[in-house]
Amino acid sequence: MKVFSIDQAAEFLREHDNYLIINHIRPDGDAVGCAAALCLGLRAMGKQSMVWKNPQTTCRFFPYLEGLETEAAPNNACIVTVDTATEGMFPLNGKDFAACTSLSIDHHPSNSMYALHTLVHPECAACGEIILELLKALEVSITPAMADALYVAISTDCGCFQYSNVTPATLRAAAELKEAGADTFAINKVMFGTKTIARLRLEALLTNTVEFYADGMIGLCVLTYAQMDAIGATEDDTNDISGFPRDIEGVKIGIMIRDLKEGGSKISLRTSGEYNATQICGVLGGGGHAAAAGATVNCGIEEAKARILGAISDTGVAL
Amino acid sequence: MKVFSIDQAAEFLREHDNYLIINHIRPDGDAVGCAAALCLGLRAMGKQSMVWKNPQTTCRFFPYLEGLETEAAPNNACIVTVDTATEGMFPLNGKDFAACTSLSIDHHPSNSMYALHTLVHPECAACGEIILELLKALEVSITPAMADALYVAISTDCGCFQYSNVTPATLRAAAELKEAGADTFAINKVMFGTKTIARLRLEALLTNTVEFYADGMIGLCVLTYAQMDAIGATEDDTNDISGFPRDIEGVKIGIMIRDLKEGGSKISLRTSGEYNATQICGVLGGGGHAAAAGATVNCGIEEAKARILGAISDTGVAL
Repeated sequence: MKVFSIDQAAEFLREHDNYLIINHIRPDGDAVGCAAALCLGLRAMGKQSMVWKNPQTTCRFFPYLEGLETEAAPNNACIVTVDTATEGMFPLNGKDFAACTSLSIDHHPSNSMYALHTLVHPECAACGEIILELLKALEVSITPAMADALYVAISTDCGCFQYSNVTPATLRAAAELKEAGADTFAINKVMFGTKTIARLRLEALLTNTVEFYADGMIGLCVLTYAQMDAIGATEDDTNDISGFPRDIEGVKIGIMIRDLKEGGSKISLRTSGEYNATQICGVLGGGGHAAAAGATVNCGIEEAKARILGAISDTGVAL
Repeated sequence: MKVFSIDQAAEFLREHDNYLIINHIRPDGDAVGCAAALCLGLRAMGKQSMVWKNPQTTCRFFPYLEGLETEAAPNNACIVTVDTATEGMFPLNGKDFAACTSLSIDHHPSNSMYALHTLVHPECAACGEIILELLKALEVSITPAMADALYVAISTDCGCFQYSNVTPATLRAAAELKEAGADTFAINKVMFGTKTIARLRLEALLTNTVEFYADGMIGLCVLTYAQMDAIGATEDDTNDISGFPRDIEGVKIGIMIRDLKEGGSKISLRTSGEYNATQICGVLGGGGHAAAAGATVNCGIEEAKARILGAISDTGVAL
């Protein structure tokens, strides 16, 4: 097990000729974009390179993987993972690769060092930033297709530059990719500019049922599986829905309560400013981060409402 | 009338000592951010500088102007405008300044050259990019307050880097501002991460009433003043609402029809891909850009629906 620098990883990639690139379970834009760009870059160097076909890849990412995927592992291929922190994150059909990964390229501080060699930069907002630096170290000329894939990787992992993980280097990487021909406007439209009608109906439901407390400082939403079925919404449509009530103007404590299929309720809390989500959820035996935390309670929705409002009240907020 | 380079504008600003900075009618983030940053920069150089208090500034921008505004024009102040393309764009309480503007700093290609000297860079996504370059040419050390103001200017004029006007220079400017201490996460949350409950109710209404045609390829929304009154929404809540139907997954032609207080209806069209909004609106005597156009028709909502669907059908789309 060895921690690689960018230059050491580049040297390693120069030395071999046949690569199979693996990304992670439920692949996101960073996972797909990194796999596609690295594969294209290695091919541009004259290497054989394929991306392991991840059965959970969603259709919005198909264009970036066209002509790159395989479902049969090539003989003697050198296994490289991207954006995959632990053995548990390997794709459903690729668990066996975990034990024979030669190089893991990642930005998760939680990388478990499962690979023979690991290139990890936790300061990067996206693994795509590392792949870009690596391709530059390999003196690969960044084509528009590589630039598109890496822009997808970087922009999706930082909410199109809105999240707190953005650094000056993130923005400069995006600038380089735009110069290299990334069609950023078209990508932004697909990744950030459109919503399914089911998602919009879900947001309309929450808008029409949100309850406000403490003069609008607390917003409380409920979402049940029965409501989702009635709308025709699936779990795919609920991405980051816990953030919905907190993003209403004036709300500083946003609460989302959902029923659990196994019984009980899941409470998600998002806070801004001076309210500590972990402290509040801690009252109910939960935890998390300062601005985002949660708790699971063994009761129905109405009782869960009372308990979380009680927990907030316990921290000194007048309801 | 003289067109200035960055260096000439910097030289001009070094030569004088007393500035009044004007921004435009209905000031947006670029107008406010540029005025604030330039004022702070000139003060850092030891100059007297004030921003003319624009009565239409909205409260989200107040923090950036604290301590900078005046309602009384200082004697013999040198008038500098930012982001203000024409005399018609001067603020409601500042029309008289148009005739005595010494320097206009702007990124609108339509700048009418009303000022004695003009620094205009139409390739910039935001006027904030020009102010940043100008402050650097003046060797002003960018403080966090200046960086915040300029990040507001740049990010709001390009939809947080989502729009087609973004260039590599836009992203690099944002990187520099982040390095200079801009609190980009907090700014993004206020500018892009929150919605008023009235806006959400408006979107819920449109979600629940949108009509689809041509297998979901056309989305048609109607919004009347009576509906807005019932919701408690004002014109402030309708910002870019014309884009709503086009941003639904699968929609390539988005139509918004609103009633006009003076009678008749306003049709706004947003298209993507192969559909030309100007061509379609041209059938009804309207016009605009390839992806965004409009037409005003002297009839009620239902007749307007029929006319715009007819115009789309005329261009060969099967409804």
